[in-house]
Amino acid sequence: MVPVAIIGASGYTGLELVKILLSHPKFELVYVGTSEGGGNIADLHPSLSKVADISVKSADADEVADVAELAFLALPHKTAMDFASKLLERGVKVVDLSADYRLKQETYEEHYCAHKDGKNIKEAVYGLPEFYRAKIKESSLVANPGCYPTASLLGLLPFIPYVKEDAPIFIDAKSGVSGAGKKLSPTTHYVNINENIFAYNPITHRHAPEIAEKIDELFLVQPQLNFVPHLIPVTRGMLCSVYMQLEKEIEPFEVLEELYKDEPFVRVKKVPVDIKSVAGTNFCDIYAVREGKSLFVSAAIDNLLRGASSQAVVNANIMYGFEEELGIPKIAYVP
Amino acid sequence: MVPVAIIGASGYTGLELVKILLSHPKFELVYVGTSEGGGNIADLHPSLSKVADISVKSADADEVADVAELAFLALPHKTAMDFASKLLERGVKVVDLSADYRLKQETYEEHYCAHKDGKNIKEAVYGLPEFYRAKIKESSLVANPGCYPTASLLGLLPFIPYVKEDAPIFIDAKSGVSGAGKKLSPTTHYVNINENIFAYNPITHRHAPEIAEKIDELFLVQPQLNFVPHLIPVTRGMLCSVYMQLEKEIEPFEVLEELYKDEPFVRVKKVPVDIKSVAGTNFCDIYAVREGKSLFVSAAIDNLLRGASSQAVVNANIMYGFEEELGIPKIAYVP
Amino acid sequence: MVPVAIIGASGYTGLELVKILLSHPKFELVYVGTSEGGGNIADLHPSLSKVADISVKSADADEVADVAELAFLALPHKTAMDFASKLLERGVKVVDLSADYRLKQETYEEHYCAHKDGKNIKEAVYGLPEFYRAKIKESSLVANPGCYPTASLLGLLPFIPYVKEDAPIFIDAKSGVSGAGKKLSPTTHYVNINENIFAYNPITHRHAPEIAEKIDELFLVQPQLNFVPHLIPVTRGMLCSVYMQLEKEIEPFEVLEELYKDEPFVRVKKVPVDIKSVAGTNFCDIYAVREGKSLFVSAAIDNLLRGASSQAVVNANIMYGFEEELGIPKIAYVP
Amino acid sequence: MVPVAIIGASGYTGLELVKILLSHPKFELVYVGTSEGGGNIADLHPSLSKVADISVKSADADEVADVAELAFLALPHKTAMDFASKLLERGVKVVDLSADYRLKQETYEEHYCAHKDGKNIKEAVYGLPEFYRAKIKESSLVANPGCYPTASLLGLLPFIPYVKEDAPIFIDAKSGVSGAGKKLSPTTHYVNINENIFAYNPITHRHAPEIAEKIDELFLVQPQLNFVPHLIPVTRGMLCSVYMQLEKEIEPFEVLEELYKDEPFVRVKKVPVDIKSVAGTNFCDIYAVREGKSLFVSAAIDNLLRGASSQAVVNANIMYGFEEELGIPKIAYVP
Repeated sequence: MVPVAIIGASGYTGLELVKILLSHPKFELVYVGTSEGGGNIADLHPSLSKVADISVKSADADEVADVAELAFLALPHKTAMDFASKLLERGVKVVDLSADYRLKQETYEEHYCAHKDGKNIKEAVYGLPEFYRAKIKESSLVANPGCYPTASLLGLLPFIPYVKEDAPIFIDAKSGVSGAGKKLSPTTHYVNINENIFAYNPITHRHAPEIAEKIDELFLVQPQLNFVPHLIPVTRGMLCSVYMQLEKEIEPFEVLEELYKDEPFVRVKKVPVDIKSVAGTNFCDIYAVREGKSLFVSAAIDNLLRGASSQAVVNANIMYGFEEELGIPKIAYVP
Repeated sequence: MVPVAIIGASGYTGLELVKILLSHPKFELVYVGTSEGGGNIADLHPSLSKVADISVKSADADEVADVAELAFLALPHKTAMDFASKLLERGVKVVDLSADYRLKQETYEEHYCAHKDGKNIKEAVYGLPEFYRAKIKESSLVANPGCYPTASLLGLLPFIPYVKEDAPIFIDAKSGVSGAGKKLSPTTHYVNINENIFAYNPITHRHAPEIAEKIDELFLVQPQLNFVPHLIPVTRGMLCSVYMQLEKEIEPFEVLEELYKDEPFVRVKKVPVDIKSVAGTNFCDIYAVREGKSLFVSAAIDNLLRGASSQAVVNANIMYGFEEELGIPKIAYVP
Repeated sequence: MVPVAIIGASGYTGLELVKILLSHPKFELVYVGTSEGGGNIADLHPSLSKVADISVKSADADEVADVAELAFLALPHKTAMDFASKLLERGVKVVDLSADYRLKQETYEEHYCAHKDGKNIKEAVYGLPEFYRAKIKESSLVANPGCYPTASLLGLLPFIPYVKEDAPIFIDAKSGVSGAGKKLSPTTHYVNINENIFAYNPITHRHAPEIAEKIDELFLVQPQLNFVPHLIPVTRGMLCSVYMQLEKEIEPFEVLEELYKDEPFVRVKKVPVDIKSVAGTNFCDIYAVREGKSLFVSAAIDNLLRGASSQAVVNANIMYGFEEELGIPKIAYVP
Repeated sequence: MVPVAIIGASGYTGLELVKILLSHPKFELVYVGTSEGGGNIADLHPSLSKVADISVKSADADEVADVAELAFLALPHKTAMDFASKLLERGVKVVDLSADYRLKQETYEEHYCAHKDGKNIKEAVYGLPEFYRAKIKESSLVANPGCYPTASLLGLLPFIPYVKEDAPIFIDAKSGVSGAGKKLSPTTHYVNINENIFAYNPITHRHAPEIAEKIDELFLVQPQLNFVPHLIPVTRGMLCSVYMQLEKEIEPFEVLEELYKDEPFVRVKKVPVDIKSVAGTNFCDIYAVREGKSLFVSAAIDNLLRGASSQAVVNANIMYGFEEELGIPKIAYVP
């Protein structure tokens, strides 16, 4: 058993990490930390009472390095890079769920803040297994993708070779409210979400550069991306609708199937996908249909799992040469 | 008071018509019919007990003509044209909420079935007041627009003069479940809608030709339209997200404001719109933002009101030269 | 037209008052105040843009007395009594939606805080029209009932004459989340309410004494009341289930019908009631069924309307001798 | 590995059985049958594609007996007894999820229909492990409790020794919609459930005799039970509120804790319970509070798991002498 730590266990993604690691056959959860520490994991997350009995520490890099080989960081942007650099220095591998190592330094600084760990940001590997598997295997620092980029990239990357030059790509994304985290705000008040739907930060959302940068990195093309996220009255799950223009009339199902048929966590569908079939799992379900040279792609994930915590554990599986599916949830919350 | 009839009162749009006409200051609801007839309106719709006491007739064109000057038809496609032609023959004006008179005959027949009222389909006026007001005023037969076309057209028409030639338009529409009607189907089972979202009939949905035809009619352009409807876990309300490419970098707020500032039922917003602010009303709220030459427009309506019944009564107001706002709901279901 | 004021317009009940008074045929809304004042009503409630154009004042008793004959107070408990006493002193009638005048002073002080307006609390009339109509008519200060007591009392009062002595009454109440107001708290975070239900403050909730006191006042009996409120994943609406034991085997439908058949805002039903049929209205729908000497009563209301704002306007109608139904919403949010 | 079968795999409880048995460490799912048979389990339940590859047979008792030692029956009432008797005759143990073996024959026939398997109904053991564990261990036929009785009995049984003689017990139960099954009906149409709540079959619901009979069986008392189920706008989960009158002022938390502290699947709580903390698990969370001699008990379960499928597998674990927790879900769908 490989001893692992979770740093940042009070939020939704921290909870999902705990839930997965409790029954993982090769990772043993030996350390759970938060900024303040104190109490038991079931105090933070009452649904874990009679399930897990783990004391919560005030997160300390030295203590982590003493007991764990790898740490999952579920910390806010900016806090994560502080902690990650200390852990890496002490020889602890890191899967970071924040945005801190996902982008090139200049892109990061344009959209977030000054970066304090220039050395490691260069080494970090983007944790989208289907496209970065080989590099993840060799890496000590995996930057786990955001939920919007995960669904968007898995949906659109297969079609980048066929896309019309200079034509913009439009992504209309719909996210469950858990994506906004536990923080209280008028936006997440029940009354404002229920029986409602709305876009937020249209076109200017900071997940767009993450998507654009990876397209460029993988295919050396720079399409104009227009990304519009919406909040929907659903707790978990995400659907990304991608609209593209093609150079030629390819068969979208075949393009997807060719690329993903052996992937354990992508399911190519012949009917439009829904989020209920993936909620609770690490699957990304994808459907695409073409009319003339216009293409519609619909990709569904669980924003907290494939969009965060279960993908993080898949990355850790790869880093240790374990089978990718080991301990990863595949059974959906259906009905 | 102008005596009016409702034919087809058992569904959701029939109920909304009843609710509006009960308190309209110039229309008097003198006849309510369904295919079977029988009982009282409160038997069909128990929420109307102690509110309305109207007996429900087995719909008969002669009886309607005897008592009413105008009839609202909330009948299924195909049934509507049978009834409309009889009423028009008898001198009764018609506002038809079905698809039967919305399209050119050839377009209709391609997407629905053979049309049996070739004479009147030529005369019918499309009931989108902001763009067809003058013709509605002169008409005896108004074809009330569908909910998807209403929101889509109000959102995209202002930008057609600025749109890039040959560039496709993408419409990502999200509808509440009441749009699917009362009919039982696995799709509308609570368990399949709740905590879920999915596209249906993507690109091939039959509201696309209605939108395309009106753009052509008004602006003589034929953009390639890609229309993708989604069902969301909401009873009423609709949000249409439109993605367009522009010839030049116009200011979208100004374009909208210029066109709509004096319209009583369009509100141009400076922040993204939501459906909750329009549910229960005839308003269409619109927001648009541009990045370079890419444009995102978001239009929200109540699918049963602006998308059907209240727009129908606005059309009747116009046909009779009444003030458009007369008796039309403007108070949203907020919270 | 009687000029009226609303003090406390930023919350949900304040908004509902505005919505009703905008179209009331005999009350004219001449003053809208909040603690801070400033801006227009549509700034506070964007859904009112293009609907109402009323500037919001910093609430001042002298200014109110200058322009209005009656004021609706939608203020927090404790703040209301300060303002009410000033208005009454200046000859302005008051309908107070807070708890400040609903209870006897000693009961109030036991459950809330010291009361600062001992004079008026004695004079205040409890605004449940079906049982206090005559006194409301003569009153200058009506204490509008809470939402839980409104539904509970309308359901259980008809059966008090038949109730078994010494047997407790159990009330299992289910409220939509708007009842908790706009304030942010973990309880009202979307993620905690959605797909969930739970009791809160069971047995100790402070609406129980309000119910008990009115039973005593009207029937001189003091049953032991056990009141358990629950939050349900619904924005508006409330269902109160009452469990009672009877002395004899009466016919519950007849008891209800006898009492309520001429009431404009109570509907006695032969099938179990639901909240959807009353949401958006001032109706209270009631159903009761008996098995042996056990009685189950189910009463449904809109918590913000019959449970607050529309009942307040009914009370004002009565105070002015207007027809009770004048300007009161009766059309439900169905579907 | 013990080879097991599922008969009746197309509904929600059948699906939950499949999901649990796929990863059970000691039961191997060797046979899945439906009345019609055909195709693969992922055709019936698309969320299982890339998860399970099991062909679905047309259910046949001989075939089951050839390959399986135990069968879970997720069949409709009445169909189950036909199949169960055949299996038992062929030496296959049965856990029956229908109502067919839960009651005494005379009670069954009063509430359902004539019973065709009088021999086995006498032998069947009621599968509520906390109260029937020893008998389940020896049994070949376990009648798995209904969801309402499971939550109600676990909540009220601990207090039966303290209950006041002749005082009725009131159960106000709230169920998610999955409890109504997949069948289409106006009741389960999204529009009728969403933003709504209502009682159904109040007092006359047929789960009441199941609860009453077990109280009598275990404690030899016959309290008058009044059971009122409600549907709430939630897919899965159930909350049963129980109202009782006591002989003496016991401490409810201690009574519960004393009985349940070593139970792996009951959690006694000091704050009111909610369904979200148990959805996805076999837990029953219970909270109780007393005021004088009135007692309120609140018990929460997942209606499809503790109320059906996971409790069935717990029973099978007991029948085979396995640890009760083996392969049973404990991780809630939180958030």
